[in-house]
Amino acid sequence: MSQTIAQIAKALDAQAVGDLEISVTSAAEPASAGADQIALAMSSKYAEGLAQGSARAALLWEGADWQAYGLEAAIFVTRPRLAMAGLSKAFDPGPEIAPGIHPSSLVDPSAQIAPGAAIGPFTVIGRDVVVGPNARIASHVTIAEGARIGADALILAHSHIGAGVIVGDRLICQPGAKIGADGFSFVTPETSTVEEARASLGKTNEIHEQSWVRIHSLGSVEIGDDVEIGANSCIDRGSVRATSVGHGTKLDNLVHVAHNVQVGRDCLLCAGVGVAGSSKIGDRVVLAGQVGVSDNVFIGDDVVTGGGTQIFTNVPSGRVIWGSPAVKMDQQIDLNKSVRRLPRLFAQVAELRETVTRLTQKGGTE
Amino acid sequence: MSQTIAQIAKALDAQAVGDLEISVTSAAEPASAGADQIALAMSSKYAEGLAQGSARAALLWEGADWQAYGLEAAIFVTRPRLAMAGLSKAFDPGPEIAPGIHPSSLVDPSAQIAPGAAIGPFTVIGRDVVVGPNARIASHVTIAEGARIGADALILAHSHIGAGVIVGDRLICQPGAKIGADGFSFVTPETSTVEEARASLGKTNEIHEQSWVRIHSLGSVEIGDDVEIGANSCIDRGSVRATSVGHGTKLDNLVHVAHNVQVGRDCLLCAGVGVAGSSKIGDRVVLAGQVGVSDNVFIGDDVVTGGGTQIFTNVPSGRVIWGSPAVKMDQQIDLNKSVRRLPRLFAQVAELRETVTRLTQKGGTE
Amino acid sequence: MSQTIAQIAKALDAQAVGDLEISVTSAAEPASAGADQIALAMSSKYAEGLAQGSARAALLWEGADWQAYGLEAAIFVTRPRLAMAGLSKAFDPGPEIAPGIHPSSLVDPSAQIAPGAAIGPFTVIGRDVVVGPNARIASHVTIAEGARIGADALILAHSHIGAGVIVGDRLICQPGAKIGADGFSFVTPETSTVEEARASLGKTNEIHEQSWVRIHSLGSVEIGDDVEIGANSCIDRGSVRATSVGHGTKLDNLVHVAHNVQVGRDCLLCAGVGVAGSSKIGDRVVLAGQVGVSDNVFIGDDVVTGGGTQIFTNVPSGRVIWGSPAVKMDQQIDLNKSVRRLPRLFAQVAELRETVTRLTQKGGTE
Repeated sequence: MSQTIAQIAKALDAQAVGDLEISVTSAAEPASAGADQIALAMSSKYAEGLAQGSARAALLWEGADWQAYGLEAAIFVTRPRLAMAGLSKAFDPGPEIAPGIHPSSLVDPSAQIAPGAAIGPFTVIGRDVVVGPNARIASHVTIAEGARIGADALILAHSHIGAGVIVGDRLICQPGAKIGADGFSFVTPETSTVEEARASLGKTNEIHEQSWVRIHSLGSVEIGDDVEIGANSCIDRGSVRATSVGHGTKLDNLVHVAHNVQVGRDCLLCAGVGVAGSSKIGDRVVLAGQVGVSDNVFIGDDVVTGGGTQIFTNVPSGRVIWGSPAVKMDQQIDLNKSVRRLPRLFAQVAELRETVTRLTQKGGTE
Repeated sequence: MSQTIAQIAKALDAQAVGDLEISVTSAAEPASAGADQIALAMSSKYAEGLAQGSARAALLWEGADWQAYGLEAAIFVTRPRLAMAGLSKAFDPGPEIAPGIHPSSLVDPSAQIAPGAAIGPFTVIGRDVVVGPNARIASHVTIAEGARIGADALILAHSHIGAGVIVGDRLICQPGAKIGADGFSFVTPETSTVEEARASLGKTNEIHEQSWVRIHSLGSVEIGDDVEIGANSCIDRGSVRATSVGHGTKLDNLVHVAHNVQVGRDCLLCAGVGVAGSSKIGDRVVLAGQVGVSDNVFIGDDVVTGGGTQIFTNVPSGRVIWGSPAVKMDQQIDLNKSVRRLPRLFAQVAELRETVTRLTQKGGTE
Repeated sequence: MSQTIAQIAKALDAQAVGDLEISVTSAAEPASAGADQIALAMSSKYAEGLAQGSARAALLWEGADWQAYGLEAAIFVTRPRLAMAGLSKAFDPGPEIAPGIHPSSLVDPSAQIAPGAAIGPFTVIGRDVVVGPNARIASHVTIAEGARIGADALILAHSHIGAGVIVGDRLICQPGAKIGADGFSFVTPETSTVEEARASLGKTNEIHEQSWVRIHSLGSVEIGDDVEIGANSCIDRGSVRATSVGHGTKLDNLVHVAHNVQVGRDCLLCAGVGVAGSSKIGDRVVLAGQVGVSDNVFIGDDVVTGGGTQIFTNVPSGRVIWGSPAVKMDQQIDLNKSVRRLPRLFAQVAELRETVTRLTQKGGTE
């Protein structure tokens, strides 16, 4: 997958200088780059590395003196990560999934597989499934009855798409993702200790035997276009309506999205995030790693959280939050400082009490 | 799967009125319900939705004026979620798993597959496995040597049941669950820095090279009746005895139960919960999302936790706890308030110190 | 797998007494041990259990009066868990994976499978894969193009080894582990709200539409010798360089290691740990359950954490830390105590303010 500097510059919509016909086959960090690789030196801290490597061409920070590094060509980028997006796309060969339907796969005769779709070995496609054009489905995938997958999907090994799940175009499903397992929804015939504890904020009345009756999931999952689901992540079916994930939203690995949850557009849910049942998350929300969202919570648009934040109550749009329970991030930073100064505060108060006691006694003897 | 209102009312043990012979094929939210669906309007907040939808029959809150909503039949429910349990069960067709043993599956000749059991494609059943009557096992499942699965189990795609695992009746195993992986148990030949840190609560002596020797898992996993294991959840084998999960306990997605753990009856472990090695959890315990339980901890019966709680020490029965480290929930609520008021407290103490300094100086000049 | 007491003592490098020719077939807890089992009674708290069971031989604590327990043979151990390591290894039959290449597996003709390697049913081995001598690969495993697996690997069901992943010798890969999924790396064409929030510690400027452009993963994963990866854990590919895990490091279940992360040698990452992109973890680091590490953080050698710790900033070597955000463990213990005493402190300050007000007024009237 060889590319010329001119081609790369065009793909990145960036300015190039020098010998634009130099051809490279991949990208590398500056110090380890070979002559057929383009060095990635998009900040001046990589200057030294450039001297050590053998690259003839590099992606450089704006204003770099490219010829001083012995380069024969350079591309200048202003937003390095955006350049990386373009460059990495150009050089990514993608997973090898043979075209066509592998003879070992089991495709139900009622399923509609669009032209250009590829289906890997040991994959099982159920009744009435629709697979869109040019979708690529790897090995050991299961797509259950009635599911519909859009065009250009990439569904990797051991993924499961449950019954009736509807997915837009360009889905990327990393290995082991489970979309459309049953929701975790149970009820006790009598009021349960959990309900009591929630109502009373901590006090339970009498303890009694209780066993859990299952609420089955009748809803499904609806996923927009351009969504990515991380490895071993889970999105459960809705109880009656569908659980939904909006266009352009990306889930990292080991993320849990419970039944009835609605996630908006263009969100990022980082690894280990858990969103409990029936919560609603707005557009462009960023939940950092291991963030937890309680059930039936509403999170507005453009909310951003710090890592490990626990959200128990509604969050207004545009807020940046952190901590457990979540507060505004700058407030949390102040609270953290306050807590770390507590031992000193305790000492000050103890000293004050002694002083005041002395003052009072003195006053009392007057 | 058409049902009459009379049939549904009988299944829910609830009172019905109107034309009980109306037949419905599924359930829907009131506003979107069609004429062949039963509307779910179990609280008065759904009254408006009823007017918008086309349902002829509805599940209504106690005392609702059903005829005013243009309904031809109604069922009145007192505990809505319990009604949902009954209704959703009635309408859930369940996953499509063809009866019999799929020819592509590999069943060891020594395995005993009871009558009525179904085994999906690409599933591997090992030596001496016993599968109970009417168990349904989907595709890509592995059941290792010596495992025993009870009657009426439902084991979904990509699940793994390890060697010697014993499971009661009516297991539900969501996709990707791993029951019976090896425990995470290692030891260093010399005292490790972890052991030192635990013993000294933070101070380690000298740093030394250490590598980990594996403690193999000889125990297995024993699971009671009516247990559900969530998607991509993991229950590890015991070291010598079996790790155990009691009757009626439900695990959500991405839950981790470590080696030697004993979980009691009728517990709920919500998504992302992790229970470390050798801890013991009583009956009817509810661990909310992302709760962590340290190793060798004892949690009494009927304990309920708030989300994200971290449990490092034993918890007496019946306690409702929250926070990290866990304390009683009402105490945690007070502590959270106190922490949020810390900046004001710091200001008050600073002011007090100034005032007292002035008073002292004044006193000193007397 | 019968062993004599003499054989076991030799394997444990421990002193044995009594009839060393007694043969046992497995290990058990003292109270439930049968005559053909060795009882595990490595602390005096098991003395009572020994009386209840039927074992003829036992692993005993140093100095135990073995004959008083009716034993015919005993092995004395000084470090019980280390003895367990040896004993459990001796008695672990390991998973049953038939020798040779199962006829249902799909091995690319270009793959090199070393002598002694076993490959289970429905496993897919891609182009140019190299599998080392005596590697054992279970069913439903996928090993993608160009991956190289060392000698004596044990790779269990539903594991995925991605393209170009390089693994040393003696890898243990528990069921469902995903090594080499794509990293979670996205960028917006314009500055995103996350970037603003990070730069300003909480304040975002204007809200604007933003959609995420994918940074593809061109790097792979490199794993040293003697590494174990837990069930359903995930290690993502690097962006340009490989994500790496050093020799002897062990990952528990449901662990997430993001793109570009470098984990050192002989570390333990317990269940639910998440390490965000480009962080670097030293040697012999122990991350307890559910610990979170932010991106681009450097953690020194020999760091040990308490459970649920959230690490947002660099941690110097040798430090024992706990809490969120992480501080030294002894400091965290003090802070926890301080927080729990806050209600009393508030009361004291309120009382002080009243007293001081009275004193001031009294002073003021003078």
